[in-house]
Amino acid sequence: MANNRKIILKSLPQGALQKDDFECVASPLPSPAQGEVLIKTLYLSIDAANRSWMQGETYRAAVKAGDVMPSFLLGRVAQSNDASVPAGALVEVTDGEWADYLVRPTEMIEIVRETNPPSHRLSVLGVAGKTAYFGLLHVGELKEGETLVVSAAAGSVGTLVGQIGKIKGCRVVGVAGGANKCKWLVEELGFDAAVDYKAGNVYKDLKRACPDGIDVYFDNVGGEILQKTLFQMNLKGRIVCCGAISQYDTNTPSGPSFPSGLLVVKRIRMEGFIALDYPEHEEQAEKDLSQWVSQGLLVMPEDIVDGLEKAPDALIGLLNGDNRGKRMVRVS
Amino acid sequence: MANNRKIILKSLPQGALQKDDFECVASPLPSPAQGEVLIKTLYLSIDAANRSWMQGETYRAAVKAGDVMPSFLLGRVAQSNDASVPAGALVEVTDGEWADYLVRPTEMIEIVRETNPPSHRLSVLGVAGKTAYFGLLHVGELKEGETLVVSAAAGSVGTLVGQIGKIKGCRVVGVAGGANKCKWLVEELGFDAAVDYKAGNVYKDLKRACPDGIDVYFDNVGGEILQKTLFQMNLKGRIVCCGAISQYDTNTPSGPSFPSGLLVVKRIRMEGFIALDYPEHEEQAEKDLSQWVSQGLLVMPEDIVDGLEKAPDALIGLLNGDNRGKRMVRVS
Repeated sequence: MANNRKIILKSLPQGALQKDDFECVASPLPSPAQGEVLIKTLYLSIDAANRSWMQGETYRAAVKAGDVMPSFLLGRVAQSNDASVPAGALVEVTDGEWADYLVRPTEMIEIVRETNPPSHRLSVLGVAGKTAYFGLLHVGELKEGETLVVSAAAGSVGTLVGQIGKIKGCRVVGVAGGANKCKWLVEELGFDAAVDYKAGNVYKDLKRACPDGIDVYFDNVGGEILQKTLFQMNLKGRIVCCGAISQYDTNTPSGPSFPSGLLVVKRIRMEGFIALDYPEHEEQAEKDLSQWVSQGLLVMPEDIVDGLEKAPDALIGLLNGDNRGKRMVRVS
Repeated sequence: MANNRKIILKSLPQGALQKDDFECVASPLPSPAQGEVLIKTLYLSIDAANRSWMQGETYRAAVKAGDVMPSFLLGRVAQSNDASVPAGALVEVTDGEWADYLVRPTEMIEIVRETNPPSHRLSVLGVAGKTAYFGLLHVGELKEGETLVVSAAAGSVGTLVGQIGKIKGCRVVGVAGGANKCKWLVEELGFDAAVDYKAGNVYKDLKRACPDGIDVYFDNVGGEILQKTLFQMNLKGRIVCCGAISQYDTNTPSGPSFPSGLLVVKRIRMEGFIALDYPEHEEQAEKDLSQWVSQGLLVMPEDIVDGLEKAPDALIGLLNGDNRGKRMVRVS
């Protein structure tokens, strides 16, 4: 019975990703072998990084034409052939895929505690939360009283970075696209200021928003905005390189051009990371994040799209900046 | 009596620095007031950074047209009006100038131990040595068995960086201009390999010289060579930003253009520093450097030009890469 839908990346995108690059196919429900489980997908995590995987090898193998689109996901075990992972367990699958059901060996999945709502496992208590937490506190070494700038500030990581910055007693400035998003960051999420990069003068607007310069820049976008913040960094400033969204939806990623002498003169540190780099701090991160949520200090805007078949639109929309907070696709 | 020569930066360079941008003037011997000393210049430190000071404010104020050319120097106290710094003391002057004699308040100079030769105070036991030491060990966190690449490898800092890399048990590859310099690095200084950037294919030549990729890149040059090493860095690689010589002798410094996403994917850290940032480690650095020199593990090629009037040529030549090791001007 062909009752499992999968979404395939039919062709590698030429330029910006298009809906036509994907195709939905039906296939039989897979069967778990010994040591494997059948997982029913609950939520797919929709991330800008999904697009970067199509550009070549990153921290994971490149996605090629014909592959089922890979995805980080949250699911529930529907059928188990391994006593250590019982049916009904809530599981995180790093190497999941855009499908109703999938089979994985149990050593490749992780049982996670139930949360309310379960989607928090993919957002504030998942990769988004840990990325914000490790990037800001371990890579950026943010200190009380500093000025923090975060780009893609209305995104899943950005909204959390800004709020954690406020919890840590910092001046927080977000960079986002459009006046509405900027207003939302300040009025709903407590940012001190927001700069609309679509308004035309990021450099001057940042200068106004950061009268004491920038101590930590949490970079989700790369490109021009990275360059413009670089010139406003304070002595011993830290640039946390988390992503480069501005360079993902293209066949020809490029970078900011900047005189590296500036890093010397200002003793700036730029450092790239991913959330999986800090396994020894996972427990503390989850404890802090959960506590902030329960204290009402941290809210996680979730942007949930219903239906597996909407995954391509959800990703394309995210690359165009139409999400607020953590975008997920609810599959069942 | 006008018996003190000074060299003035008559005009800011338009493009590459020219001899005509300087002028030698005679002036009366200055007199130290209370708390000041008269210093007789022994050696001027000739550094690529001197040129960058003409581009604008750096870690020091910009050099302007009409200024006596500033310089790091080694001198001897000729006349003292402060009992704490007696006549005859050997002193380091961070904020010195291109002159036979100068007057400075004693709080702005530092008495240093005599070394044999005294020029070691400006080279291996001075800023060059400390820059190599702090950059490689504190910023770069070089570990045994890693692959180290250093650019401007035949320069004052580069020659030391490479040798310290060998002391630490690493594969060391230098980037320098010209076959002779490259041969010298390997045959005389013990580098494992050297890449001639003038030979035309830095990327491929580096690839060949670093079959296991690059763990630490000690960057003295910026620009194109920085970009080419960036693409060959290993996971968790460190780029030590020490200088950007390739961008100093111009009115329009630019930088490498690179996708910052690469820093994320490879978790690369790029960090700028200057030698003055590590006062708490000065003593250990000097102890280690002295010991390596006395054990014959570290040699300091010194490139000494005689005569204050030769300082402009010495600097222009250094910017063109005609020095080997630490260039100094012996004034008296």
